[in-house]
Amino acid sequence: MKKNLNQLKLQGIMQINNENYRSIWLDSSCGNMNDQAVKIIDQTLLPHRFEIRRLSTLQEMVTAIMTMQVRGAPLIGAAAAYGVALAMQEDASNIHLDYTAKTLLASRPTAVNLRWAVQRMLSHLQALPPEQRVATAWAEAALICNEDVALNQAIAQRGLTLLQALSARHQNRTSTNTLNILTHCNAGWLATVDWGTALAPIYAAFEAGITLHVWVDETRPRNQGASLTAWELRQHGIAHTVITDNAGGHLMQLGQVDMVIVGADRVTKNGDVCNKIGTYLKALAAFDNHIPFYVAAPSPSIDWNITHGHEIEIEARSEDEVAYITGRLADGTLASVNVLPTGSRAANPAFDITPARLVTGIITERGVCAPSDLATLFPEN
Amino acid sequence: MKKNLNQLKLQGIMQINNENYRSIWLDSSCGNMNDQAVKIIDQTLLPHRFEIRRLSTLQEMVTAIMTMQVRGAPLIGAAAAYGVALAMQEDASNIHLDYTAKTLLASRPTAVNLRWAVQRMLSHLQALPPEQRVATAWAEAALICNEDVALNQAIAQRGLTLLQALSARHQNRTSTNTLNILTHCNAGWLATVDWGTALAPIYAAFEAGITLHVWVDETRPRNQGASLTAWELRQHGIAHTVITDNAGGHLMQLGQVDMVIVGADRVTKNGDVCNKIGTYLKALAAFDNHIPFYVAAPSPSIDWNITHGHEIEIEARSEDEVAYITGRLADGTLASVNVLPTGSRAANPAFDITPARLVTGIITERGVCAPSDLATLFPEN
Repeated sequence: MKKNLNQLKLQGIMQINNENYRSIWLDSSCGNMNDQAVKIIDQTLLPHRFEIRRLSTLQEMVTAIMTMQVRGAPLIGAAAAYGVALAMQEDASNIHLDYTAKTLLASRPTAVNLRWAVQRMLSHLQALPPEQRVATAWAEAALICNEDVALNQAIAQRGLTLLQALSARHQNRTSTNTLNILTHCNAGWLATVDWGTALAPIYAAFEAGITLHVWVDETRPRNQGASLTAWELRQHGIAHTVITDNAGGHLMQLGQVDMVIVGADRVTKNGDVCNKIGTYLKALAAFDNHIPFYVAAPSPSIDWNITHGHEIEIEARSEDEVAYITGRLADGTLASVNVLPTGSRAANPAFDITPARLVTGIITERGVCAPSDLATLFPEN
Repeated sequence: MKKNLNQLKLQGIMQINNENYRSIWLDSSCGNMNDQAVKIIDQTLLPHRFEIRRLSTLQEMVTAIMTMQVRGAPLIGAAAAYGVALAMQEDASNIHLDYTAKTLLASRPTAVNLRWAVQRMLSHLQALPPEQRVATAWAEAALICNEDVALNQAIAQRGLTLLQALSARHQNRTSTNTLNILTHCNAGWLATVDWGTALAPIYAAFEAGITLHVWVDETRPRNQGASLTAWELRQHGIAHTVITDNAGGHLMQLGQVDMVIVGADRVTKNGDVCNKIGTYLKALAAFDNHIPFYVAAPSPSIDWNITHGHEIEIEARSEDEVAYITGRLADGTLASVNVLPTGSRAANPAFDITPARLVTGIITERGVCAPSDLATLFPEN
């Protein structure tokens, strides 16, 4: 049964085995404000195992961020906010607050949401006496999570209008009424607190009755497309097909892709987009084939301090992420296999920059705009 | 100790654990012309295991081609020629010759070398009485192999001149004298009888003392880059780094790629290039970053019967190649892991088309030319 968008706004879109979740939440078993914990879904085990982890210290949160048990720019922001709250619970002193901010900022360098969330927490906590910091930190972290959901709902709504227009144009042009959307990496509910960024318009369009099919880029080396996006879409019952990262250009040449939507780890003032490695290649192919290429980014993903994409620090991750691939053996147990020849080395840059000239539009909570019009949409920055 | 190119021409370039090999050869243990067999390296086990297979029937050869124990356009051609010889040994009748050609042509649709080799064998055998076919088939298959080596040596020589020029220009421009070359899939000696196509100029340049480093695209889904190219280059002692298929565009943006060389499964009359899926994306990125993009293709890879790339049949391979990845477990044994969510499907197109407009030059045995000048270089077609 289809639900309308307002119903979904009340209950959220994320459902796992037909139960509502968020990707990060307060452990309700704790009554005491000074002994709270946060729960997350361990995303390193998906799609093979669904396991929830309880994090009760700053260090556990930092480890969860660094090992990508939580990942996705908006979720990293929310996780960092909760990391500050956990840290204040351990020690609310100025020194520890300073240490907490530095530790969290160093955990992942590229997504600007992490810096945004830490700075927001600091701006609320620094002025307070230590004894008031714990309660404020928990409240502010919860607010950041709720705001993230609201931002992504707005992106869903803005994107829905766009997809409705594309779908109508598409139906006039072709014999099939299926809208084929390609996405790279995971920018779904797992990458945020709920709804997702790139997938939010897709969920809204599906609920609004638009027939669609998603091409899911595998997204090596960590396979967030095959592992997370495919799993999310399947939980929601949305038609999808996993493809290797190599295949998208070919499908575009064949007319089998009607639009591309990706998320962003950071968008610069001029509309350059930093996103998962490989995004740039898909943007080039979309441009070459006159296919609209959209980036869904809530305002906390926009870095107003820098103008050009090349100023962004690109995280270099371990070469083991290229060498080892985890999956299910025939007996269902998980195993990691090494695919490299003994002695060969690998390099693993985690993000790339898609220049604004290749981006058709950026879907923000305030509306869809050309990359060059970002500043007009957010005049306060 | 460096060898000059003439020395290498005598002994071949392919060395595995310091022993000379070809990727396909006649089993020397057979004395009888009617009981011969062919040996190949089982490329599905590399880089983890080096195992040689003995093929003594047409069916075994067809299976080896279909399962990609032998792969690479030129090697498929040579394998098909030996397949005809094995078939004639079993039954040299007209009916069986006809059946053999049909079976081999149906084994893989995209690489034109297979069709070229089968037609060449047919043109020699059809006119002969059955009792003369076996000897002629073995001789012609051996000739095709030797010619492949000679063609690739010529490509090595032509490409060396090109790399010397690029290397000289590069040293004038940058502080480092390392020439960084990106390649996709495997077009090395494993993809041919010896030398390779895309890697032939790299081997020649290395032997000529040019300092170079190769970025090896992993090349999902079958990982021929990580499995075969990295292993080949390591056997030869050439510096290389494996990267995911997503990373090449980013490295080009950073100026870390000086040129791209790939092989081809088929080149059309107008210079469109059909090659391993994902080649088109790298060509787009090279073009966007003003990086020369070369295709190494011997004349048997050129299809003079068709003008445009979109006329080529693109092989759709099993979705299991996307779902399952094979590698070494910690104890050294090989295992395949499934990386997809239960119930998610995959699509697996094996090749794509790089339009001639994105190709800087095609390296053939007769010289390097712009795609539009292919017909001038081969006026007889």
